[in-house]
Amino acid sequence: MASIDVTPVARVLGLMICALAGIMLIPAAVDASAANPDWTAFVESAAVTGFIGGAMVLATQYRGAFELSLRQAFLLTVASWLAITAFSALPFLGLGLDYTDAFFEAISGITTTGSTVITDLDALPPGILLWRSLLQWIGGLGIIVMAIVILPFLRVGGMQLFYTESSERSEKVVPSAFHLSAWIVTIYLVLTATCALLYGAGEMSAFDAVNHAMATLSTGGYSTHDASFAYFQQPATQWTATIFMLAGAFPFVAYIRFLKGERRAFWRDPQIRGLLRFLLIAALAMALWLWTTREIDFLDALRLTAFNITSVVTTTGFASDDYGRWGALAVAAFLMFTFVGGCTGSTSGAIKIYRYQVLWIIVRSQLLRLVSPHRVVLLRYGSRTIPADVPASVLAFVAVFLATVAVFTVALAGMGLDLVTALSASATAITNVGPGLGPIVGPAGNFAVLPDAAKWILSVAMLLGRLEIFSVLILFDPEFWRP
Amino acid sequence: MASIDVTPVARVLGLMICALAGIMLIPAAVDASAANPDWTAFVESAAVTGFIGGAMVLATQYRGAFELSLRQAFLLTVASWLAITAFSALPFLGLGLDYTDAFFEAISGITTTGSTVITDLDALPPGILLWRSLLQWIGGLGIIVMAIVILPFLRVGGMQLFYTESSERSEKVVPSAFHLSAWIVTIYLVLTATCALLYGAGEMSAFDAVNHAMATLSTGGYSTHDASFAYFQQPATQWTATIFMLAGAFPFVAYIRFLKGERRAFWRDPQIRGLLRFLLIAALAMALWLWTTREIDFLDALRLTAFNITSVVTTTGFASDDYGRWGALAVAAFLMFTFVGGCTGSTSGAIKIYRYQVLWIIVRSQLLRLVSPHRVVLLRYGSRTIPADVPASVLAFVAVFLATVAVFTVALAGMGLDLVTALSASATAITNVGPGLGPIVGPAGNFAVLPDAAKWILSVAMLLGRLEIFSVLILFDPEFWRP
Repeated sequence: MASIDVTPVARVLGLMICALAGIMLIPAAVDASAANPDWTAFVESAAVTGFIGGAMVLATQYRGAFELSLRQAFLLTVASWLAITAFSALPFLGLGLDYTDAFFEAISGITTTGSTVITDLDALPPGILLWRSLLQWIGGLGIIVMAIVILPFLRVGGMQLFYTESSERSEKVVPSAFHLSAWIVTIYLVLTATCALLYGAGEMSAFDAVNHAMATLSTGGYSTHDASFAYFQQPATQWTATIFMLAGAFPFVAYIRFLKGERRAFWRDPQIRGLLRFLLIAALAMALWLWTTREIDFLDALRLTAFNITSVVTTTGFASDDYGRWGALAVAAFLMFTFVGGCTGSTSGAIKIYRYQVLWIIVRSQLLRLVSPHRVVLLRYGSRTIPADVPASVLAFVAVFLATVAVFTVALAGMGLDLVTALSASATAITNVGPGLGPIVGPAGNFAVLPDAAKWILSVAMLLGRLEIFSVLILFDPEFWRP
Repeated sequence: MASIDVTPVARVLGLMICALAGIMLIPAAVDASAANPDWTAFVESAAVTGFIGGAMVLATQYRGAFELSLRQAFLLTVASWLAITAFSALPFLGLGLDYTDAFFEAISGITTTGSTVITDLDALPPGILLWRSLLQWIGGLGIIVMAIVILPFLRVGGMQLFYTESSERSEKVVPSAFHLSAWIVTIYLVLTATCALLYGAGEMSAFDAVNHAMATLSTGGYSTHDASFAYFQQPATQWTATIFMLAGAFPFVAYIRFLKGERRAFWRDPQIRGLLRFLLIAALAMALWLWTTREIDFLDALRLTAFNITSVVTTTGFASDDYGRWGALAVAAFLMFTFVGGCTGSTSGAIKIYRYQVLWIIVRSQLLRLVSPHRVVLLRYGSRTIPADVPASVLAFVAVFLATVAVFTVALAGMGLDLVTALSASATAITNVGPGLGPIVGPAGNFAVLPDAAKWILSVAMLLGRLEIFSVLILFDPEFWRP
């Protein structure tokens, strides 16, 4: 007998896959109502997906209280993202993509990365465009739930700093999960609907508004146009997007606190303050720089920098302009922005603001220790003391994160990609941002021309980044499988 | 009264500056004996340097036992490297360099970086070539003494892991310093002399042999030829250089232990084992890759990769070939190699092997904790337990190191340098390697064409890297100056 009972894991997986099959019927209906023959691709995919999911559920009859152990939770986390991606790729086969491209597009959607291998988006049937947006929206919802409900419990990468009250009191993940998840789904839905209404009230068609709202709140970045957000040039639209990308990168726990009556929940959250401060300084500084060096009107420059910097920092990946042509400073700065990330407990990827804040607190305390070796330094984050095991978790996470970027850069270079393309593609995949730098993977490029092996490497990178690396690495540790 | 008594610091500084003035007479004598009029530049520089150094010594009459406090030791560390560099730059003015270029060349020498702004080296007078090599040799000696005697005591970047027995027992730096320093100087001298004899027995002239031996053992990388080590094409010469670059990157404590009768001192040192293992794998893998993709004879390929990878990893910076033209994989790999570094307590810079080993131990323990949250994991490095404060020190160091590279990259890009040049120049300066990537700062380029501001930025970067960053940062902490 294996040391881990995989039956409950397989059962949950089966249920998820069945749900996915159901969701596939939405784009099928849209295509059918538009009399577009592509609806068959969705129905066929739904049939295959539903059959396998149903078989898994039936094969794993399970009695007794439903509980997941720590190891089962890790296994389910990785298995669910992989399985959902594998089946989500099926509808793309209907476009004539091979499975490599289909898988890449699906995982780029699910992980809310937003890199695409599809060209000529503007001519695609509506169903497949909606499917791309739906994948991002579901993936965004999934990662918020995971980050708030599961990861702090698993103590991944210092996220135990964000134990919510319910997870502190409970030894099991599941019971409190339903309550929290209901809040999260509601907030996420309302934010998306509001964003779609505002988009629709502006220059966007209803279809574009819904799709872009889903890709905005999930900080995903898929667009229905090859030009990405440069297709929409009204300042109001771009500022709306900037605000809702931010909304997607805020910690959803802050929304819940606010709705439960804590009026200063946003203002008092150190992650939100840190993120806003960083974005404000970066956008203003680069706007000043564009204004003085490129003779762009200051307000236009600020709109450009606020949009594109917020897009990269929140790991959305929309582009309202090809910032690769803003000059050497901008190119280098955008490479660094790629690593920042939004808040934890949001749809945002990358290293994330709180880890930089914890790093800064540790570095400060190290300097104090150098001056006064015998002083006791208390590490505080916001209003709470940093638990003893958080510094090592955070630091180990950052080290592994950067090592992963380095290893994937060398691997991509081994396929003949130049250094800037390899480095920025590796970084943009692991951080789930979307666009990299240079003509191929930059904001104006397309990942389609990359060799197949590079697409698989980047697919692995996106999954690693989305699951905070350690959740995946742990499955490769022999200790994990030992009884 | 200031909270730190700077009198003893100024006194030691004065003595050091006087010694530097004395050393300037060596290249003066060489130039004079070669009937080269450049000897006057050295005599004038020596006069200025000696006058100021002497004045400092006379102005700081000091009575009582000579002891340095922790803060005085930090202050002296930074002040001595800055002052020595400022005066070492003077002889370069005789070549017609402006002070920016002279300072850059001096700090690149003293920090054993090896980036140069001087073109047409082959036509220079012998005195100035010797001066460049001497700077590297002295800088290399200085950093070994500092790393073994001072830094562990200052607990910088996890170096408390390397308390030698004497520093463990003593509360003050100085008493044990003389004994240790005598060992270090002797070993360093004997290694350099051996290397010079082997070089001279091969294809090198006596002058080239002495200069290159000094630049080899100090892992500095200044050459007397524009072609760097590509000027010497005999395999025996290149393998000799490979071995002695390694000798310079070994921890000097291991030599001392060996000479005191510990026969297995090298074999048992975890740093040495880690470094050799890494180099062996990297050189073999890249040789295989060159052999298969470029149709280079395997032994020739191995000589190329062993030499150039050892050169970059030990932070020497000699180049026996323009590896920038070995293809995309090599370019990306060499960028990563830049960050590796040799062992601590050697002349080598960068992050250094032991920090990667400690990081790996921490990441392993984090994975174990994820699987079994209640297990107590004992962290061991080689035969000793890792002290409780080392993980945070090491991790904070790596974080600050990489953040410094990022900040300097953006600053250099702000001067219009392209991303690869800016990133690799920033990295190669902070790691004290020497050559970066691309046509300007690459192994076949020259730093002379960079704007002045970029040269000053890189000068700061070289000093920061050499002094393990925290030794410099601490002086900017207001706490440091508080009584």
